[in-house]
Amino acid sequence: MLKDPSVKYRPFPQINIPDRQWPNRTITKAPRWLSTDLRDGNQSLIDPMSADKKRRFFDLLCKVGLKEIEVGFPSSGATDFDFISGLVRSGAVPDDVTVQVLTQSRADLIATSFDSLEGAKTAIVHLYNAVAPMWRKIVFQMEQSEIKQIAIDGAKLLRDNAARLPGTDWRFEYSPECFSTAELDFSLEVCSAVMDVLQPTAEKPVIFNLPATVEAATPNVYADQIEYFSRNIPNREAVVISLHTHNDRGTGVAAAELGVLAGGDRVEGCLFGNGERTGNTCLVTAALNLYTQGVDPELDFSDIDEVIQTVEFCNQLPVHPRHPYGGELVHTAFSGSHQDAIKKGFAAQAARNDQLWEVPYLPIDPADIGRSYEAVIRVNSQSGKGGAAWVMEQDHGLKLPKKLQADFSRDVQELADSSGRELVSADIWQAFESAYLSEESRKFQLIDWQENHSGADRIFVGSIRVNGQESRLSGRGNGLMSSVIAALSEAGGPDLDIVDYSEHAIGHGSDARAAAYVECRTSDGRSVFGAGIDPDVATASVRALLSAANRV
Amino acid sequence: MLKDPSVKYRPFPQINIPDRQWPNRTITKAPRWLSTDLRDGNQSLIDPMSADKKRRFFDLLCKVGLKEIEVGFPSSGATDFDFISGLVRSGAVPDDVTVQVLTQSRADLIATSFDSLEGAKTAIVHLYNAVAPMWRKIVFQMEQSEIKQIAIDGAKLLRDNAARLPGTDWRFEYSPECFSTAELDFSLEVCSAVMDVLQPTAEKPVIFNLPATVEAATPNVYADQIEYFSRNIPNREAVVISLHTHNDRGTGVAAAELGVLAGGDRVEGCLFGNGERTGNTCLVTAALNLYTQGVDPELDFSDIDEVIQTVEFCNQLPVHPRHPYGGELVHTAFSGSHQDAIKKGFAAQAARNDQLWEVPYLPIDPADIGRSYEAVIRVNSQSGKGGAAWVMEQDHGLKLPKKLQADFSRDVQELADSSGRELVSADIWQAFESAYLSEESRKFQLIDWQENHSGADRIFVGSIRVNGQESRLSGRGNGLMSSVIAALSEAGGPDLDIVDYSEHAIGHGSDARAAAYVECRTSDGRSVFGAGIDPDVATASVRALLSAANRV
Repeated sequence: MLKDPSVKYRPFPQINIPDRQWPNRTITKAPRWLSTDLRDGNQSLIDPMSADKKRRFFDLLCKVGLKEIEVGFPSSGATDFDFISGLVRSGAVPDDVTVQVLTQSRADLIATSFDSLEGAKTAIVHLYNAVAPMWRKIVFQMEQSEIKQIAIDGAKLLRDNAARLPGTDWRFEYSPECFSTAELDFSLEVCSAVMDVLQPTAEKPVIFNLPATVEAATPNVYADQIEYFSRNIPNREAVVISLHTHNDRGTGVAAAELGVLAGGDRVEGCLFGNGERTGNTCLVTAALNLYTQGVDPELDFSDIDEVIQTVEFCNQLPVHPRHPYGGELVHTAFSGSHQDAIKKGFAAQAARNDQLWEVPYLPIDPADIGRSYEAVIRVNSQSGKGGAAWVMEQDHGLKLPKKLQADFSRDVQELADSSGRELVSADIWQAFESAYLSEESRKFQLIDWQENHSGADRIFVGSIRVNGQESRLSGRGNGLMSSVIAALSEAGGPDLDIVDYSEHAIGHGSDARAAAYVECRTSDGRSVFGAGIDPDVATASVRALLSAANRV
Repeated sequence: MLKDPSVKYRPFPQINIPDRQWPNRTITKAPRWLSTDLRDGNQSLIDPMSADKKRRFFDLLCKVGLKEIEVGFPSSGATDFDFISGLVRSGAVPDDVTVQVLTQSRADLIATSFDSLEGAKTAIVHLYNAVAPMWRKIVFQMEQSEIKQIAIDGAKLLRDNAARLPGTDWRFEYSPECFSTAELDFSLEVCSAVMDVLQPTAEKPVIFNLPATVEAATPNVYADQIEYFSRNIPNREAVVISLHTHNDRGTGVAAAELGVLAGGDRVEGCLFGNGERTGNTCLVTAALNLYTQGVDPELDFSDIDEVIQTVEFCNQLPVHPRHPYGGELVHTAFSGSHQDAIKKGFAAQAARNDQLWEVPYLPIDPADIGRSYEAVIRVNSQSGKGGAAWVMEQDHGLKLPKKLQADFSRDVQELADSSGRELVSADIWQAFESAYLSEESRKFQLIDWQENHSGADRIFVGSIRVNGQESRLSGRGNGLMSSVIAALSEAGGPDLDIVDYSEHAIGHGSDARAAAYVECRTSDGRSVFGAGIDPDVATASVRALLSAANRV
């Protein structure tokens, strides 16, 4: 049993900001994005990336449009240092991309970090130290003043190392670590002290990264913290507020979004939310959330499957089937009513003049991220008639009449129930073929036929296998359909009245075929449906009638 | 390339509620929970559950403490109907658990739904129809008045069917479907009309479920919608507001939490966030989010691995390694600085008197959900010295002195770099053994030894294999250690000074062994470390010295 949690855990305290403004705002432009896939992401992997994988990931990030990329922790060892200096010196970094490295506040580590970036046009050195009370007390056993001095000393080292290597346009980022669980006023005090050293300007601002290193409260609290910081940091125009949220409570993306409303200028995260423990903000989700609000995210996920392939290969972690936007199942509907609504949505979309996307249950056009419509509707025992009809139309070009859909859905449902698994397109086609099209081991099998005119009447003469026996049948009527019915009736077939009939072409040009559908009523009042496909339109009708007769 | 999204997508409009109260609140008690795993969850599976699996899932839900469980859609077909009526009649439903079924607003479907529940003590019939404009326009081509009439007609059928079957205490839930994308005032109008029919009271309230059927805005907007509804629905005390969020924007849990702040009384969701497309609110995350704030969630996930096992078996979908609380990697730290902080946190925790949980990087005590500490720290090339030391202590009982940790970490780092994969406990043990403990093919191998006293001096006499040759060594000193060093020196070993020495027991009772560690300085001033393990404390020391000599 779970114990009473109140002795062990405490509610997160509220932020005193009754006049908060962020809930009144909406996001109208993309924040700056930083990918930390190669740092926070990489350090959290069971098997960290090889240099080859890192390079492949880096190239993907550039292709997707990231302009700021944290590439590692160069003072952590030769692996990271060599990758970073190799990357910079090989010319792999595009002119409009800035690489960033992380360092602790120690003279040798900071010097090593600068050295790893030698030759870069611009680069960001990211300094951090923990300011939160749990870290001060448990990990460092230090007072606030000592913690603040570490940040000041680090900032001085940033300044001095930048002067030592004037060939690079150095930018600085400072993280008061575990910001979200630290005293807001202390974080402000430390950041102000860092500003006193670095002397940032609006043209060359300092980046303050305000991490929810461990997510510890509902996301509105993080937004309150960001708004408080944004309103109280001096010389605000010389500061870029960067958000770095983790997902321990499952609300990392929400915290980043509300944080942007609250004044965040920049969002740090990883593709598909990799990162320590529960991961960082998912940059794919955050970017496409903007996209589906009509805001240009300035990141390009138009080929999401390529992105997934590389990320899964490099991280050796799967993208979950239900991951927003990218998951295998997220543009998929199994339920019949959802499938029906989606079909109608696509039809209305096709009929409308404007480009506005309005399809029920699909918050994004799958085509916008390189997915096809066919994947949208899948059929299982929860699907009802809509799903199978969609598959028949999309994959085989058959536009089944509504009542025939209902008739066919019984076969589909039975098959889905008995198989207990998802039906693929081939299953559904096979079910349709065996129910309506196949004449094998049925009473009537068409071999050949012709039609003669006799005054206003038509005379159907067919060579038809009846119960396996080749027979010559003929019947008279006022049209093809009635003459076929007369012929079948003569050969011991059922008495049928035609209730409905339709036919359409499948494909076009010389390969085109015709599909015919009939609904008939039997002498005892039951409805029976038939379908026929043939290169010849008239033969398709004849086959549809035989199909109906075979199904009585 | 992504196209300009502004022609295709529109920003979600804001809610006019400038005096919103929800951001000032915190959650102080658990909401009512409804599991819809067997309905929304099941209908979204590639392979829907068999009756056996459904039953197994239902039993799990009861065990976890769910008191309201949506068990299916009885009018959808025999599969669901038979399962539900079987469940009710078999007595599988505990007295304090209420089952719920979903139905569309049609006389035959509603009657079937009631029939499926015949014999239940209490039951909830959940009626829905779509009220949102996209559905009205595209799917139903109906005016608001017609849509409202469908709800009213459905409510009357609920009332009348309940009267037909008086043996059950019937409760009603109504969902204005796609609430979050519908006009708020229209949803209120429809819900009021439903109340006029059902005449709910504070003792027998109606449940209004307000779904974000498709997540379409940042989660604060959903909270605004809930607060607006909660403030404007008449006879509020006769209404239970239920929240049903999906995760299309990755913020479904956040929306549910902010919705609770805004007045939601009840949360609908699925274990590990199964459900249509991106899934529903994850009930595990939502509940444990409360738990880690000291609020009793009234759901018991103290054996989370059992829950995962059943959910993965029934859904045939994985729980992602980074899923909050339950994922395989979420209580794990690979980074050295994280590992170090966690170690210190555990130590501080053990030393403190109170029960308050304060361990860096671990928002929940893994033991609270049935996970062990050992899984917390794992070692790879990003780990530094802390991780290996933790593994040596946890798995082998060796408390390596700090400087020996640093010495050993070079071997571990090399191994991690060269193998390019996570090191398991056995790898680390093997590395330690081969570096310090194994005497095989080393210069000095201990066969046997004894010590004689000679006045104040000790004389060490050892039978030792030196470069493969069995030799008899002896040395004199003022104690065991110095006499061993003298003996080794005589046999061509290095001149060593002892800088530090420590020893501790491993295990207790008759199986206990001793571990000894030495740090020595060589004549040219280098530090060299040795370790020895033996059932005898003195022999462990001798082995440690031989180990150091072998490593020079």
